[in-house]
Amino acid sequence: MDERLQVDYLLTCQPDEDPEAKLRDIALEQTVELPRDCVPDALYERVVGRVERFSALPDHRFEATLSFNPALVGGELTQLLNTLFGNISLKDGIRLTDIRWPRDLLDAFGGPAFGMTGLRQLTGVPGGEALLCTALKPVGLDADALAERAYRFALGGMDIIKDDHGVADQADAPFVERVTACQSAVAQANAETGGNSLYFPNVTAPWHLLEARMTVAREAGCRGVLISPWITGLDTMRWLRGRFGLALMAHPALTGSYFRPDHGISPDLLLGDLFRLTGADASIYPNTGGRFGFSLATCEAINHRLRYPMGELLPAAPTPGGGMDVARAPGWIEQYGADTIMLIGGSLYAQGDLTRATEALRKAIGR
Amino acid sequence: MDERLQVDYLLTCQPDEDPEAKLRDIALEQTVELPRDCVPDALYERVVGRVERFSALPDHRFEATLSFNPALVGGELTQLLNTLFGNISLKDGIRLTDIRWPRDLLDAFGGPAFGMTGLRQLTGVPGGEALLCTALKPVGLDADALAERAYRFALGGMDIIKDDHGVADQADAPFVERVTACQSAVAQANAETGGNSLYFPNVTAPWHLLEARMTVAREAGCRGVLISPWITGLDTMRWLRGRFGLALMAHPALTGSYFRPDHGISPDLLLGDLFRLTGADASIYPNTGGRFGFSLATCEAINHRLRYPMGELLPAAPTPGGGMDVARAPGWIEQYGADTIMLIGGSLYAQGDLTRATEALRKAIGR
Repeated sequence: MDERLQVDYLLTCQPDEDPEAKLRDIALEQTVELPRDCVPDALYERVVGRVERFSALPDHRFEATLSFNPALVGGELTQLLNTLFGNISLKDGIRLTDIRWPRDLLDAFGGPAFGMTGLRQLTGVPGGEALLCTALKPVGLDADALAERAYRFALGGMDIIKDDHGVADQADAPFVERVTACQSAVAQANAETGGNSLYFPNVTAPWHLLEARMTVAREAGCRGVLISPWITGLDTMRWLRGRFGLALMAHPALTGSYFRPDHGISPDLLLGDLFRLTGADASIYPNTGGRFGFSLATCEAINHRLRYPMGELLPAAPTPGGGMDVARAPGWIEQYGADTIMLIGGSLYAQGDLTRATEALRKAIGR
Repeated sequence: MDERLQVDYLLTCQPDEDPEAKLRDIALEQTVELPRDCVPDALYERVVGRVERFSALPDHRFEATLSFNPALVGGELTQLLNTLFGNISLKDGIRLTDIRWPRDLLDAFGGPAFGMTGLRQLTGVPGGEALLCTALKPVGLDADALAERAYRFALGGMDIIKDDHGVADQADAPFVERVTACQSAVAQANAETGGNSLYFPNVTAPWHLLEARMTVAREAGCRGVLISPWITGLDTMRWLRGRFGLALMAHPALTGSYFRPDHGISPDLLLGDLFRLTGADASIYPNTGGRFGFSLATCEAINHRLRYPMGELLPAAPTPGGGMDVARAPGWIEQYGADTIMLIGGSLYAQGDLTRATEALRKAIGR
């Protein structure tokens, strides 16, 4: 018999709301979208989600599991997202907290083409040492000015220099001109230092331009790109994985609204399981203690899901960022382990000399 | 001087949080992503969002307006979404409530290719009468069984028979087989009745299959399709608009997490302005009093935004659904006006005979 898709929920009920009725409603809403008595028994049994268990927590909250027939997904990521949270995104008090994936679905989507190990090969950073990443910014600079910054970072030995996720194809630094200039600048620095810095341009783009952006990046000599998959549509990332020979670093833009305590999708599921499943080699998330509000437990949970055994999927690289600073970097590596990419932007810019700031960061983490 | 993109926010502050500082933080976060003192003055002036105004409401809430240089968007919808709500989706107490669009942006994205008027032409329903829509369901039926249901609805004079949004390309009713069967069934019923029912298949699909789905729908003789743009990526809908000669009915799946009172994007902006801007000829939303939690005011606000003067954009068709019933349909048309599509599914199925149920619905609304 086929393995079923098992989904855990945290339900927050109204005082007069029956949790089992709420679960049965989710099971119908996410499948047949009809009242029970409009569904023939045989079809109900085969197609409607099943209530597997539920148990009470304080404050009218309940832990629950529904299971779904994986045939509902039809092997398509778009329909997977719809089954997981399409209509119930519009209902209150429902949070997805865990998913146990049927092996067939994992195999269908494939996961990272490079993963943590592949990123080590591309950057030349050996096991046991964390990778470093920074962002090229700000938007508004021209391509030459951004390339100059990329050059300075690369001279200092930065492993991955990615575009800021708000640097797209604006007139100040058009995509083709910028990618060519920045990749050349990084290659020049590598030639001078013998280093191996990589430049990852932001390819987040309208539907019809995405392939062209990937092609430009590849032909310029880039080895990876940045993408905001919740903006392009998550399936876009799945489609790009492995297709252009470029590693994918995923940015969480637009995902934050799902991360409410009583509603949505837990951050570790979305930025961990879903991003990894669909091909993120690295998943950026806002580190605790920075400009955003994730707890340490949430960050650790994301790290776990990017690395845990998930069928044959490669482990991906947790990439905490967002208000990180140089002084605390060694502590974070100790906390999260060496199979992590430390994303540090603003605090390097604040030091003025980007090469020295990068060298100091490398020294601070013992590289 | 270029018209700026004006965005209104409802801020919910902590008691010790300075609203102006929060606004300046948003203005930096959504543009340069650097602290103020890392940004040269000239670039700051040109690129960083501007605080235009803010005023206090009770309970530490504030109404505020920021304006952005539209050049930041670079004419791309993906970067527009990022500028509007990319990183700040990850921050607390920020809700987008209104946008005043520069004319250039409206022209760049284009809006509905058909709109309400075009849907009247396709269906033959004259002005002053509301359109009727239903959903083909449940998932799990085979193509012939769904086609039989489509035929019954069309015999009764249903204007638009759309796939349920969870009917994708599952093995029970593969897309090509289903679309061919359902479109033929509806054409057969039209031939018998002299009517003009339309079948809109669900084309929500992975990136690489979308064009093929649109082509199949067009070649089968369909005049429109259903799409869940938040699942495919909103820019996908923009790209499809006008390209295949098919009207676009947008479904709100996966959008609900943005609709929190103190966080996200107001439903009227997302399902109204953003869906209309990117080409939805009709925008489905959960009607008040049904299975979901929108207020009447929210529904009226969505209707308004789908119809209000928005540059040269055509008005789109509000499509309230989700637990609607036949008895209340006339009241809703009186409430919302005739330029509305009434989406009624379950309550027709509950009556058993789909043709008679549709005829009764038409009679109830005076058609």
